[in-house]
Amino acid sequence: MKKQLVAGVDLGGTSLSAVVADPSGNVLGLAEADTPPPNADPGPVIREIARIVREAAGAAGVDMGDLLALGVGAPGTLDPDTGFMAKAVNLGWLDVPFTRLLQDETGLPSFAAGDVQSAIMGEHTFGAAKGAASAIGVWIGTGLGGGIILGGELYRGHSGAAGEIGHMVVAPGGPECGCGRKGCIEAFASRTAIERDLRAAIAAGRKSVVLEIMEKRGKTRITSGILKRALAADDALTMEVLARAQDHLGTFVANLINVLDPEVVVVGGGLVEKLGDNFVAPIRAKAQAECFRRPAGPPRVLPSALGDDAGSLGASEIARRRLNRQVASLK
Amino acid sequence: MKKQLVAGVDLGGTSLSAVVADPSGNVLGLAEADTPPPNADPGPVIREIARIVREAAGAAGVDMGDLLALGVGAPGTLDPDTGFMAKAVNLGWLDVPFTRLLQDETGLPSFAAGDVQSAIMGEHTFGAAKGAASAIGVWIGTGLGGGIILGGELYRGHSGAAGEIGHMVVAPGGPECGCGRKGCIEAFASRTAIERDLRAAIAAGRKSVVLEIMEKRGKTRITSGILKRALAADDALTMEVLARAQDHLGTFVANLINVLDPEVVVVGGGLVEKLGDNFVAPIRAKAQAECFRRPAGPPRVLPSALGDDAGSLGASEIARRRLNRQVASLK
Repeated sequence: MKKQLVAGVDLGGTSLSAVVADPSGNVLGLAEADTPPPNADPGPVIREIARIVREAAGAAGVDMGDLLALGVGAPGTLDPDTGFMAKAVNLGWLDVPFTRLLQDETGLPSFAAGDVQSAIMGEHTFGAAKGAASAIGVWIGTGLGGGIILGGELYRGHSGAAGEIGHMVVAPGGPECGCGRKGCIEAFASRTAIERDLRAAIAAGRKSVVLEIMEKRGKTRITSGILKRALAADDALTMEVLARAQDHLGTFVANLINVLDPEVVVVGGGLVEKLGDNFVAPIRAKAQAECFRRPAGPPRVLPSALGDDAGSLGASEIARRRLNRQVASLK
Repeated sequence: MKKQLVAGVDLGGTSLSAVVADPSGNVLGLAEADTPPPNADPGPVIREIARIVREAAGAAGVDMGDLLALGVGAPGTLDPDTGFMAKAVNLGWLDVPFTRLLQDETGLPSFAAGDVQSAIMGEHTFGAAKGAASAIGVWIGTGLGGGIILGGELYRGHSGAAGEIGHMVVAPGGPECGCGRKGCIEAFASRTAIERDLRAAIAAGRKSVVLEIMEKRGKTRITSGILKRALAADDALTMEVLARAQDHLGTFVANLINVLDPEVVVVGGGLVEKLGDNFVAPIRAKAQAECFRRPAGPPRVLPSALGDDAGSLGASEIARRRLNRQVASLK
């Protein structure tokens, strides 16, 4: 207790990671696991979260019971006040009292937030957006998610749904999106969209080393790692498809800047982890050139600085703040 | 003084209006004038503002010196803290110490804000968004401007430039915008864009009563009033061009909702004043159908309730709040 340690968990559709962190964001313990397969019963995931939190606590030299709180960043439709999760497609959940189950299993005060909300909170408190009063997180992975910090705090909007930036239509009549609309930025620039465009071009006869690399590495999906290897091999088609996604992302980030005028935009997620600022630089260049002129000049557009740990560190910070608020309200 | 009256002015490129209002938003005095022609010297506009404020005060049965403060909603690049206006294209101004000049001329504590910021503040305090904690204003006129209320207050962003929503690109490669980019919503859906599309279609041989109505009424521009008359005459081309603008506006409002999750969106400006909810209804239908599903259902999308007075009433409210804040900070 005297170290003021909090656990943060990043719950993804395929993997789980936990950190135990101090108030300065130092990671004192770390643990990872595969996410149990989709299941209407949340029990296996809840138990696995408790197991890796205990493991991360052990790595930090404390017992799980010594932790002040647990925060989890999770994908799905979540009420952050009640911790009730109405729907989490990747996990197979419907109507799960998420934080209550976490609390029962771990004995720790438990809090939950969206996965990208957690990531941008991590970057805001300890990473690329440190010290900025306002920041927008653009997280590119299987989908494209967002998180918004205003006045130093998560901005949730009227119904907790703010930051659904992946479903900004950037070209009406564009490719179909998972949400049912056409031309959302997610349908142009998520890793899934990039994979779709690469496969379509290859099927249409374009040359690329991508399939060869996938076969060599025993992969069935065009992961961010595969894209990195294809770029290292100067694969022209991969460069072309990525450039198209980056072009749309540049316009999209300029749009976000024009609406919200944030101090910093942080671009993160699997693609950025693998490709780094090489992926972000063209987005930054286009967004800064195209956003409406403002007295202070265009805002910074930076790659995630915390990589894999953004979500779990951010979830720990969210738990820390919400616990402090609860304690303050009891005084 | 005992009535706690404040003056608010809406300074447009062609007309000026002033209200004197009480804390409940009751307009006790009103005055209007033409805006003096563009001039590098701000003197004529400043004196005209003072004149109509004095006139509105007289109509309210008080002297100008009895007013608590003056607020002005103005178009241009303005620093709301210093009241310094770097640029106002429609007025011909560069580097004008706007609120200092107002204060010197009227003797009243003077405050300034953007024109649409003032309008959405008016709607938020007294009109369509009354009682809502968050609201986005979409104002359609010669251009397309925005204003954002979050947590009951104007949201200005990191450099005071938040709400430049007119320059959200909704279709890359679309029509050229005054800002130099292509495909901004302003280039699709402002009155200027609607006029451009109508004229182009007529030039290409499409039939329309628009030119005839303009000639009859001695107008050289396709004003909102002309559009209203053309609709009343069941002009098919006008309906078609407006429907295209409304379609883009529907997507655009859905985009704003997905990013900010506001409680209310208010659509106002000259077109809405003339055409009313007939113009807003298709925008509402598309925006509510297309925005990302949220637990509380889609937000309300409403026409401006204050019409012409939104800007001046909002400017009076901004002045009242900022004066109160100054007084509070002195205590």
